[in-house]
Amino acid sequence: MHRIGLFSEVGDLSPGSVEKSASKGKKEMMRETRLGLSKKKDVNFGEWYSEVVVKGEMIEYYDISGCYIVRPWAMSIWEIMQTFFDAEIKQMKIKNCYFPLFGVQQKEKDHIEGFAPEVAWVTKSGESELEMPIAIRPTSETIMHPYFSKWIRGHRDLPLRLNQWCNIVRWEFSDPTPFIRSREFLWQEGHTAFATKEEADTEVLEILELYRRIYEEFLAVPVIKGKKSEHEKFAGGLYTTTVEAFVPNTGRGVQGATSHCLGQNFAKTFEINFENEKGEKAMVWQNSWAYTTRTIGVMVMVHGDDKGLVLPPKVASVQVIVIPDPYKDADMQGIFDACAATVKSLNEVGIRAEADLRDNYSPGWKYSHWEMKGVPLRIEIGPKDFANNQVHAVRRDSAAKIDIPMADLVEKVKDMLDNIQQSLFECAKQKRDACIQVVHTWEEFVEALGRKKMILAPWCDDEEVEKDVKARTKGDIGAAKSLCSPFNQPELPEGTLCFASGKPAKKWTYWGRSY
Amino acid sequence: MHRIGLFSEVGDLSPGSVEKSASKGKKEMMRETRLGLSKKKDVNFGEWYSEVVVKGEMIEYYDISGCYIVRPWAMSIWEIMQTFFDAEIKQMKIKNCYFPLFGVQQKEKDHIEGFAPEVAWVTKSGESELEMPIAIRPTSETIMHPYFSKWIRGHRDLPLRLNQWCNIVRWEFSDPTPFIRSREFLWQEGHTAFATKEEADTEVLEILELYRRIYEEFLAVPVIKGKKSEHEKFAGGLYTTTVEAFVPNTGRGVQGATSHCLGQNFAKTFEINFENEKGEKAMVWQNSWAYTTRTIGVMVMVHGDDKGLVLPPKVASVQVIVIPDPYKDADMQGIFDACAATVKSLNEVGIRAEADLRDNYSPGWKYSHWEMKGVPLRIEIGPKDFANNQVHAVRRDSAAKIDIPMADLVEKVKDMLDNIQQSLFECAKQKRDACIQVVHTWEEFVEALGRKKMILAPWCDDEEVEKDVKARTKGDIGAAKSLCSPFNQPELPEGTLCFASGKPAKKWTYWGRSY
Repeated sequence: MHRIGLFSEVGDLSPGSVEKSASKGKKEMMRETRLGLSKKKDVNFGEWYSEVVVKGEMIEYYDISGCYIVRPWAMSIWEIMQTFFDAEIKQMKIKNCYFPLFGVQQKEKDHIEGFAPEVAWVTKSGESELEMPIAIRPTSETIMHPYFSKWIRGHRDLPLRLNQWCNIVRWEFSDPTPFIRSREFLWQEGHTAFATKEEADTEVLEILELYRRIYEEFLAVPVIKGKKSEHEKFAGGLYTTTVEAFVPNTGRGVQGATSHCLGQNFAKTFEINFENEKGEKAMVWQNSWAYTTRTIGVMVMVHGDDKGLVLPPKVASVQVIVIPDPYKDADMQGIFDACAATVKSLNEVGIRAEADLRDNYSPGWKYSHWEMKGVPLRIEIGPKDFANNQVHAVRRDSAAKIDIPMADLVEKVKDMLDNIQQSLFECAKQKRDACIQVVHTWEEFVEALGRKKMILAPWCDDEEVEKDVKARTKGDIGAAKSLCSPFNQPELPEGTLCFASGKPAKKWTYWGRSY
Repeated sequence: MHRIGLFSEVGDLSPGSVEKSASKGKKEMMRETRLGLSKKKDVNFGEWYSEVVVKGEMIEYYDISGCYIVRPWAMSIWEIMQTFFDAEIKQMKIKNCYFPLFGVQQKEKDHIEGFAPEVAWVTKSGESELEMPIAIRPTSETIMHPYFSKWIRGHRDLPLRLNQWCNIVRWEFSDPTPFIRSREFLWQEGHTAFATKEEADTEVLEILELYRRIYEEFLAVPVIKGKKSEHEKFAGGLYTTTVEAFVPNTGRGVQGATSHCLGQNFAKTFEINFENEKGEKAMVWQNSWAYTTRTIGVMVMVHGDDKGLVLPPKVASVQVIVIPDPYKDADMQGIFDACAATVKSLNEVGIRAEADLRDNYSPGWKYSHWEMKGVPLRIEIGPKDFANNQVHAVRRDSAAKIDIPMADLVEKVKDMLDNIQQSLFECAKQKRDACIQVVHTWEEFVEALGRKKMILAPWCDDEEVEKDVKARTKGDIGAAKSLCSPFNQPELPEGTLCFASGKPAKKWTYWGRSY
C-alpha cells in the first residue's frame, strides 16, 4: 500500500490488504492470505493480547504512549454494559451528573499522596502560563466533596447519590496495556453520602453485586468478591470491596472493579455535615465506586484464543453473522435471499444478526474475519442448505457445528446463544478454579507463585507482613500482593498460622501477582 | 446555617433554608420564605440567567472560572437528547468510538490557527516535566485524521462514519456563561469520510436536520437553518451549516449547532487517500458535526421566566409533579393515596410523573419549588378534589388551571403536555419572529442593531465587508457579525444592493450580535 503503518510491530492489519486486487489486471485474483494471529496465546501472551485487540478492531495504538483509540467494536461492548448499569443505578435513585475535568483543591492527605505521582497538570493555555497549575481528575472525590458540603444541610438532603460517566487520566509509568492499564480510560464513578454507616455499607455491597453481574453475567468472567487489605485499599477510604478476576495464562489477578466505603474521613476534611433528626450536627458517611473499560480487557484475556476474540453473546454487538456460501452454478439470488430472511427473522426477536454479503471476499476469508472479531455464532447458507431449507451454524467458542431447519431457526439460535454464554462462563470458571491453590507455608507459597497460581492462604492481616511479602517476592515480573480476602471464607481452624509470618492467622486471603 | 455559600452573589439557595425548623422549639413553624428569583428576566437578563440556572438546580458554579457542575436536573435533559440523537445516527450506520483526550500532532494550518489560542496544555505529570507538551482536544479532527489515513485503503472502506460523546476543553477568556460559553463542555462529535462530495453534502444536511429537531421538537426553540459566511465557518473546513437560535431579551444570536463539510483539505494534510473503483488513487471528502450542552442554556434563556425555569415536556425528567393539598381535618391518607394512584396511572403510560409527599414543606412552598425547577404540569389534590374524584392541574407555561376528572386523567394530561410543548414553541417563535427586521441600508442596520433585532439584510458576500461591519459596530457589548445565510432565501430582486458596501447583493443574510 501507499502508506506505512504507524505500528509496524503488528504489521499490516487491514482487511483491505487481502482484498481482491483490482489493479492487478483484468483477471481478478482472490487472495486467500491467512488472516489469523501470528502469536499464540499460550506461547507469548503479551504479544498475543496486543495483536488480538488490534486485529479484532477493538483498539488502535495511539501516538501518545499509554493512550489508545477505542474502536466501535469495543465501544459497543462498553455501551451494552453501560445501558445495564445505568438503568440499575437509576432504579436505586442514583442520579447522573457531570463535574469538571479539572480540580485545584487538594485537601485529603492520604488520598493526595496516593494519587499525586499520577496526576497530569495543565499549566498553559495557548501561549500563556496559567496563574495556577490545574489538575486533571485521577478520580473526583476532591472535586465533588466541597459541593457535597454546600448542598447537604439537613438530614432531608440525605442520601445524596450521584454518578458520572466520564474519562479519567492517571499518568502511570508502568507497562501500559490496552484497556488494562492506560493513561486515559473511561469509567463511571459513583459518589454518595448517607446519614448512617449502615446505609453506606448496604450500598457498597449492592454496587459490588452489580459489578459481579457485569463480569459474570455479561462478560462471562468469574470473579471473587472480597475485601482489600489495608495496604491495598482506596487511598483515604475506610475499606474497599472488590471483584477480583484472574488471568490463568499469566497467573495474574486483576482488580475488576471496586466499591469503597470512605467512612467519615473525607466528610471531616471537607466539612460535610448535616443537622440530624435530633437537631444535632453530624458527619455524613460516604462511598465511592467505579468500573472502567478495563472490564473489556479482562474479557479479551480470559476468552480469546489463537483465532482471535471470543465475545460472550450478551455483549456482542453482532451475535450472529450470516454468510452465504455459494458454489459455482448455485442459485445465488436464492441463497442471498435466504441470508436476508435469516437475519430478518433473528432481528425480529431481538437477536443482533447481520449478513456479510460482500462479493469481494471468499467465504473462507469471511469465516476467519468474523472469528477474529469473536462473533459468537456463524450461520452459513450454501446450495445444500438452501435446497434443504436449513442453515449450517458454527459456534465460535467450541467450533461445534449443527444444521438447523429454518422452521426451528429462532428457537435454536436463542438456545445456542444462551448456551454459549453459559458455557464460556463455566469454562472460564473451571480454568480459574484449577489455578486456585491453598497454601500454608512460605515454601508452598513461593512454589505456587512460580506456577502462576491464585493462592489462598491463611494470613495474620498485618500490613507490615504484606509489605514484607512484596519485598521478598520482588522480581522482574512484579511482586506478589494480596488480592482480596474473600467474603466467602473457608473454615479457619483454631491455631492456623499465617503463611508468611507464622503468627496466628486471622483470615483466608487470596495472593498473587496482579495487573 | 453553619456554612457560608461559596458563591455569595446568589445567596442561600438551599431549600433547606426554609425547612421547618425543628430546633426552634416545640411548636414547629412553617417558614413561608419566598423561594423566588431576586432578578427579573426583562430587567437584568444576565443576573437572572445566572440565578435561574443555579436556583433551578441545573448548574453549580465551580471554583475554576468557566467550569461548571452540571447537576442531575440538567444532566437528565442532556441524556434525553442523547438518547434521541444516538439512536438516529445509529440508524444512519454511524458508529460510536472513543479517541484520546490528548493530541500532539498539529498539522492543518488554518485549523490550528483557529484553535491555538484556546488550547490547554499538559506539561507536567506528578513532579516531572513531560518531554513534550500535550494538547487537550478543543475538537478531534487532528486527533482522528491520522487514523482515518491508516484505516482507509480502498473504496470499500468508505464511508467511514464515527461519532463520540465526550468532553471538550477550550480555554476561552471572554465572558464565561453556564452552558453557553464554558471552558469545558460536553458534546458529541461526528467525523466521517466519503468517496464523493455528494455523499458528504447529503450527510451534512441530514445531521443539520437532526439538530433542528433537537432544538425545535425537543427544546421547543425555533432555529434558522443556514450557511455560515467564509469568515465564520469552521477553521480549515470547506463550508459550515448551522442552526441559529436567537435570544430576544439580549438581541443576540446563538450558533445552536454546526454541521461542517471539510471538503478535502484535511484529507490532503493527513493523506487520507483511497483506491477508487477504477483503481486510481483519490482523496476522501470529509465532514464533522457537533452539538453541545449549550443547547440547554439556549432553552433556559428562551423559555425561563421570573418564576424560574420552564421546561418543555419532551426534555423534562419530571413532566408532572403531584402535590397533596391537605386542609385541617381532611382525609390525609385518602389524599395521599389519590396522589400515589395519580402518579401510578401516569407512569403506566410513560408519563414521567412524581409525587412530592414531604411533610416538612407547605403546599405553597412546593408550588414555588417546582415552578422554579420548571416542571411543565402541576397536579394538586385537595379535599374538594378528593371528594369529587378529580384533580386540579396547573400549567407552568401559562398558569392556566383546569379540573380533570380522574376518569379522564391520562388522556387529558397527555393532551396538556402535547399542548404545552407546542405552545412553548409557538410562543418562542412569535417572539423570535417579532425580532426579525429586514433592512436595506447601513442606517437602518445600525438602528435595528440598537433595538436588539435579528437583522435580515441583502449582502454582497464579501469577507472584507464583514470585517468592516464588525469594525464599525465594535463596542462594549460586542460587534455585529453575520449569523447565517438562510437556506430559505427571500426573493432578491435584480439590482438590490448590499446594506453595508453598496455593491450588488448576492444573498440575504442574518446579522446581529451573538453569544
